[in-house]
Amino acid sequence: MSTVGFVGLGNMGGPMAANLAAAGHEVKVFDLVPELIAGVEGGLAQASALDAASDVDVFISMLPAGKHVAGLYLDEGVLARLPQGALAIDCSTIDPETARRVAAAATDAGIAMLDAPVSGGTAGAQNGTLTFIVGGDADALARARPLLEAMGANIFHAGANGAGQIAKICNNMLLAIQMAGTAEALSLGVDNGLDPKVLSEIMKQSSGGNWALKVYNPFPGVMDGVPASRGYQGGFLVDLMTKDLALAMTTAEQSRSSVPMGGLAKNLYRVHEQTHGAGRLDFSSIQWLYRPVLVGGE
Amino acid sequence: MSTVGFVGLGNMGGPMAANLAAAGHEVKVFDLVPELIAGVEGGLAQASALDAASDVDVFISMLPAGKHVAGLYLDEGVLARLPQGALAIDCSTIDPETARRVAAAATDAGIAMLDAPVSGGTAGAQNGTLTFIVGGDADALARARPLLEAMGANIFHAGANGAGQIAKICNNMLLAIQMAGTAEALSLGVDNGLDPKVLSEIMKQSSGGNWALKVYNPFPGVMDGVPASRGYQGGFLVDLMTKDLALAMTTAEQSRSSVPMGGLAKNLYRVHEQTHGAGRLDFSSIQWLYRPVLVGGE
Repeated sequence: MSTVGFVGLGNMGGPMAANLAAAGHEVKVFDLVPELIAGVEGGLAQASALDAASDVDVFISMLPAGKHVAGLYLDEGVLARLPQGALAIDCSTIDPETARRVAAAATDAGIAMLDAPVSGGTAGAQNGTLTFIVGGDADALARARPLLEAMGANIFHAGANGAGQIAKICNNMLLAIQMAGTAEALSLGVDNGLDPKVLSEIMKQSSGGNWALKVYNPFPGVMDGVPASRGYQGGFLVDLMTKDLALAMTTAEQSRSSVPMGGLAKNLYRVHEQTHGAGRLDFSSIQWLYRPVLVGGE
Repeated sequence: MSTVGFVGLGNMGGPMAANLAAAGHEVKVFDLVPELIAGVEGGLAQASALDAASDVDVFISMLPAGKHVAGLYLDEGVLARLPQGALAIDCSTIDPETARRVAAAATDAGIAMLDAPVSGGTAGAQNGTLTFIVGGDADALARARPLLEAMGANIFHAGANGAGQIAKICNNMLLAIQMAGTAEALSLGVDNGLDPKVLSEIMKQSSGGNWALKVYNPFPGVMDGVPASRGYQGGFLVDLMTKDLALAMTTAEQSRSSVPMGGLAKNLYRVHEQTHGAGRLDFSSIQWLYRPVLVGGE
């Protein structure tokens, strides 16, 4: 069992820290919002991020964006405070450039560092079934593995530092493209008289098959237990998808990559968010952009 | 066993007719190109399309576009020549409006008619593993089933006449969107230092998963036995994908449906075809639009 510092206790970080504590680790928790600190079952409340970084084996962060991650590790001095040889795991989804810069500073300070963004949403965080997409060296990942397994079900090693962020950005860009494309194909079929269940089944078993058709159909009434069948409440928010798509655009510009499909998907999601006020709906609500659907009901 | 007329003996129709003959049916074959008639093993050569429509139980057509289908059944008089109560199956991929118009004329002439466009390509036609996406009434499909099973492995009933065409158009539009999106995501990853095999595996098992990542990866060297690993030779041609996307655009305009992702995919495929002369390459060669790839080699 390890002594772990954990900073960032929101909808994702809170349950992740609680799962670590439930697995028997000593978890020193801190957040700028005091109520979130008290909400972590089994956590040891700390007065500051630096306290959470003191005398720990492993330090984990779960923050909104790159500026918060750089601020915590570099400006606030977490890297300087961590014991020599400690392991730092940043689970935030941020730009790869910041991930690499912080990891380089960690190496200089004698700290092993991983970027380990997650997918699986708040349900995955609560149930300990998250997917971690990890960048950093294999030795550091081997040390991190028992902790990641206490919070998640799948662990992928994408490559060197920053590669976890890149792989997540690529995956989520493709996901946005496919979700918009699936909603578009279903609407085209329904507009021409097809039953959305029949068309979904045909495409799922054909070359149009994808994750959305299999487990996350965006058309209301086709599939039970998905956001589309409860007014698009819960799930993975449009606000988070547009954030990930913005990261994809920034990353593409830095590497001079063409991303026409991702760029259009980003703008469709932005139109949806702005004209429908849909930021707090699940991202499969992009179906609404193609035709009227029941939104917000149970 | 039935007596079957079969008109349109190209790369798809030829092997389909041969498979019917191999299954024991009497198959009367005709094409405007005489060499194609002689090439159908087991087929009974006819001097005209009307001869192929005389004294048959079932009549099957496999033609390039809607104008050929309307020309054959209506202008050339195949519907008038077919025996009362015969069954006509058009396997061409055409616009749904023409499919419905010809089916209505068939009903008036006392002929049962199905639209049954296929997927699975020339390999599927040769091996008898095609997928049929069928529009028309259930009784007619029940009569057609033994013949379709001699040519294919999967049969979907999409709905009334024209629904087979609609479902195929929706599926192939989604396929084009996903193939371009997959190529785009893989290039973004590779441009940022990721191994395309590792990134493909991560996305395949995550929410970015789709048919292309599973069996038809567009990035050279990731997967054996796919067009990307033999210079994009063979497979489903860019020319055919642009044809299907043009049908999707026409269908969407008729139903006043929005298809922004499909429209962009169509234009990317058109750019690829025009600037790279890629019409005769497999459609996964859209990867080339994002970064240099080995094309044309073995």
